[in-house]
Amino acid sequence: MPRPIVTLLTDFGLSDHYVAAMKGVILSICPEAALVDITHEGAPFHIFEAGYELAQAVKTFPPGTVHLVVVDPGVGSSRRPLLAEASGHRFVAPDNGVLTMALAGRAPTVREATATEYFRQPLSRTFHGRDIFAPIAAHLAAGADPAAFGPRIDDYKKLVIPVPAETSPGQWTGAVLRVDRFGNAITNFDWNTFHWLAERAFTMDAAGHRIDAFRNNYTEAAEGEVFVLRGSAGYLEISAQQRSAAAALGLRHGSPLRLTAQ
Amino acid sequence: MPRPIVTLLTDFGLSDHYVAAMKGVILSICPEAALVDITHEGAPFHIFEAGYELAQAVKTFPPGTVHLVVVDPGVGSSRRPLLAEASGHRFVAPDNGVLTMALAGRAPTVREATATEYFRQPLSRTFHGRDIFAPIAAHLAAGADPAAFGPRIDDYKKLVIPVPAETSPGQWTGAVLRVDRFGNAITNFDWNTFHWLAERAFTMDAAGHRIDAFRNNYTEAAEGEVFVLRGSAGYLEISAQQRSAAAALGLRHGSPLRLTAQ
Amino acid sequence: MPRPIVTLLTDFGLSDHYVAAMKGVILSICPEAALVDITHEGAPFHIFEAGYELAQAVKTFPPGTVHLVVVDPGVGSSRRPLLAEASGHRFVAPDNGVLTMALAGRAPTVREATATEYFRQPLSRTFHGRDIFAPIAAHLAAGADPAAFGPRIDDYKKLVIPVPAETSPGQWTGAVLRVDRFGNAITNFDWNTFHWLAERAFTMDAAGHRIDAFRNNYTEAAEGEVFVLRGSAGYLEISAQQRSAAAALGLRHGSPLRLTAQ
Repeated sequence: MPRPIVTLLTDFGLSDHYVAAMKGVILSICPEAALVDITHEGAPFHIFEAGYELAQAVKTFPPGTVHLVVVDPGVGSSRRPLLAEASGHRFVAPDNGVLTMALAGRAPTVREATATEYFRQPLSRTFHGRDIFAPIAAHLAAGADPAAFGPRIDDYKKLVIPVPAETSPGQWTGAVLRVDRFGNAITNFDWNTFHWLAERAFTMDAAGHRIDAFRNNYTEAAEGEVFVLRGSAGYLEISAQQRSAAAALGLRHGSPLRLTAQ
Repeated sequence: MPRPIVTLLTDFGLSDHYVAAMKGVILSICPEAALVDITHEGAPFHIFEAGYELAQAVKTFPPGTVHLVVVDPGVGSSRRPLLAEASGHRFVAPDNGVLTMALAGRAPTVREATATEYFRQPLSRTFHGRDIFAPIAAHLAAGADPAAFGPRIDDYKKLVIPVPAETSPGQWTGAVLRVDRFGNAITNFDWNTFHWLAERAFTMDAAGHRIDAFRNNYTEAAEGEVFVLRGSAGYLEISAQQRSAAAALGLRHGSPLRLTAQ
Repeated sequence: MPRPIVTLLTDFGLSDHYVAAMKGVILSICPEAALVDITHEGAPFHIFEAGYELAQAVKTFPPGTVHLVVVDPGVGSSRRPLLAEASGHRFVAPDNGVLTMALAGRAPTVREATATEYFRQPLSRTFHGRDIFAPIAAHLAAGADPAAFGPRIDDYKKLVIPVPAETSPGQWTGAVLRVDRFGNAITNFDWNTFHWLAERAFTMDAAGHRIDAFRNNYTEAAEGEVFVLRGSAGYLEISAQQRSAAAALGLRHGSPLRLTAQ
């Protein structure tokens, strides 16, 4: 059996002990686990952005990896703890939609974690990351059968992920999914559908600005230019060279876009 | 022998190589060690807060873990390097009180690290984390006997940890121990003693504000409400839903509190 | 064979999935690797500072370590991917000079990575960290022969690292290499040459301020005093006690200095 991998994605930040407390729980149960942080520094309570980051990170991990996700504004309420299996990956997360993008198109098996014997005691009402999700992830990593944790469910929460809509021939509305550390605005225009921008005139309207340049990489751009490129996540991105396109244009998660083929 | 675990807690931040330099030292001596960061992002030189975070994190790690703590404003002076054993955990830290909360109630064995043959050479005067504490932690993780590092001492430095004081029947003074990333103000009112707040009227006076609501979790609260809940560290916390209670009330480490049973 | 170590140094920050994506690639290829972050929080695109941090961190890691460095403003352009061997360490990085300090004085063997069969497909134009550098690092960690990745080259890019110049007898010009999290201004005056400051009168002129105190450690200094000490990286540092000397004096990377023996 290969060395188990557990990834961690939370909104806990890195200035408190919360992430480490979860790692202590995991290593107590599965000492051989390799622990990999996806991010803990996202906007607190931002389920959509966490789900986006998860979905992107999952692509490079091997099957068998356990992904532990704790962005959980509903902690302590009746929202259910979930575990999911899809394409050989396992996920442990609250039932708030954070897994939507990661599970999309993967025909997942989703379970509600009801087996309280796996929970850490005493069970806190504000830190289920430590007391519910981390122990489940660790037991999964150590080889436990997902079916042992609870029954299959189908009514788990799904977020609406915005997709481009063709509003008239050659014109689409879209949205910004995520702004990254460099100020790239990752759009929901996927490369597989919209790769024609690389070879055909277009305009992208974004927050009152109009972009009409496509560049293959940052160094092709003129200084100060805002342009569209093929992003590493498989979407068109609105970018600039060594500065934040999102700040320059006033874009953020959810900003509407309009793409027009010329 | 299980895989050794070494946790690291410093105030070095994550933008320099300092934490990595310590990890290089540890892996050079104990290649099989699992390294877990507790935090490096706390306020620089804040011994009390580092000690609080350490004490909380320790609870979830298995016995045998080595905890390496370098919040060390006295580096290079005559303050002693310590190693301590308590409840099967091992600690390596400067003698400045940072271990006080983690060792409380655990009947520790504390030693001064005098065996300079374990130190890295040349010994810097400003980075004992790399040159003294990391090598000791690594040798401990690799199985060295704590007694090899130096003699037992009893006069190691202890911080005063504020505890609630009953100033008149049904009235206590207390203090904020820590404000976390979410703006929860963790108080020194421990749940075991003060759990009656969940079922009985009370007022908590904090920085000119009066709180009289107890909530089981964040979602029970009204929007904007500041309330008391049972925190995951075993203390009462002053919290708000998806915003910072500490910022709303002006609370920080050390802020005085007054609790009154009604 | 000991457990392979891969260090990672990027300017990706920790709020996106980018670093984790690279780790997923590495663990997919070399599951037993120990992954150690050097830093991801440096100034974006700052090749010099990244190179400085790398060179310092490398000193504590054991031979055999693979150092993966992705500070890469030229991603997607014709800049070459490199792998280098020096003193038993292996380095994978873009050809932009970021390895200059780490390789200095080590008689490196440097190769251009041309063996595209090791690259991840589809190859993005904006994230070679994930698609080129991480796979190479992982294959090296897993035991691949460096010669398999491409031919030796000698014309790789080298940065000019400023060194002190004696402009008249007993007077030198120098520069600030790096300002760290604590506000220490690390100069390019190396201790081996300039250790006489500890025992002889001097003045250090820096941004219109004059410093004439040498201290062995922070606690020797008077409150508020700005002084010179022997830094842990082997250079003189301009420091203050529990506050930022760089902020107090207005120093940053590249600030000129003048040292005069009295």
